[in-house]
Amino acid sequence: MTNDNYFINLAIEEAKVSLREGGLPIGAVLVKDNKVISKGHNRLIQNNSVILHAEMDAIENAGPLTHEDYRKCTLYTTLSPCPMCSGAVVLYNIPKVVIGDNSTLMGAEEFLKANDVEVVVLNDVNCKNLFEEFTRKNPEIWQKELAKVGNSTESKI
Amino acid sequence: MTNDNYFINLAIEEAKVSLREGGLPIGAVLVKDNKVISKGHNRLIQNNSVILHAEMDAIENAGPLTHEDYRKCTLYTTLSPCPMCSGAVVLYNIPKVVIGDNSTLMGAEEFLKANDVEVVVLNDVNCKNLFEEFTRKNPEIWQKELAKVGNSTESKI
Repeated sequence: MTNDNYFINLAIEEAKVSLREGGLPIGAVLVKDNKVISKGHNRLIQNNSVILHAEMDAIENAGPLTHEDYRKCTLYTTLSPCPMCSGAVVLYNIPKVVIGDNSTLMGAEEFLKANDVEVVVLNDVNCKNLFEEFTRKNPEIWQKELAKVGNSTESKI
Repeated sequence: MTNDNYFINLAIEEAKVSLREGGLPIGAVLVKDNKVISKGHNRLIQNNSVILHAEMDAIENAGPLTHEDYRKCTLYTTLSPCPMCSGAVVLYNIPKVVIGDNSTLMGAEEFLKANDVEVVVLNDVNCKNLFEEFTRKNPEIWQKELAKVGNSTESKI
């Protein structure tokens, strides 16, 4: 198993924590120097939040880091990150994002790349299946989420 | 007094709430149909947070809105919004951002404009003075904040 597979599997475990809480199955982990320093999952439904996406939750749970430490981090996320989460990556100069799947939802990957963030897409079938199965079984929940954002998960760079 | 001046003054009041709490003096209000629907202020220091900027706090405090309602909103903020906060504006399709001051800190305004967000800069002297005075009187606090983000408050679009 590669490092990327190992860490994305931890992000998937976080996505499953959210699922067990009644939330959207999206998870993330922040890795520094090859060690997980924080985990996060989508909390929109659980916390009635509009900002606690998995990536935001992971970045928040890491607490404040120095610029030098952020520069050593890689963010692993099960789903392509939206403009807000991508903006947080850009703000804190996190140099690399590893994405489990972007076939079910495309985020602001071009914005990340335009800001010199390395973007790796794993095309991980478990990430894809977990999210697709959820939206298929819970179309009303997913439509309610989509109804907030219109068509803006991508963003123009 | 114009509407913009009225609402930016409310954002300044929020910035002063943060100041009284020992936090950074940055405030925001979200306005829909010419009425304030939420207020927010920077909570980085108070909450040991890295995501609760004033704009994020205001958007979170508004709670989930429909796409149609977000499209009726204007976000007022005392200071030019960073890439994360700008990303939240893009995600939720908020069509207009009114900025008190961008001379003390330039945010991701070009990213907003590239995503069809109307950006108005008021060059409000009270916003400018409030923030400048804080950073002049508290250089160690402000340097500690800047040490997290390096030079990325702006962002490439």
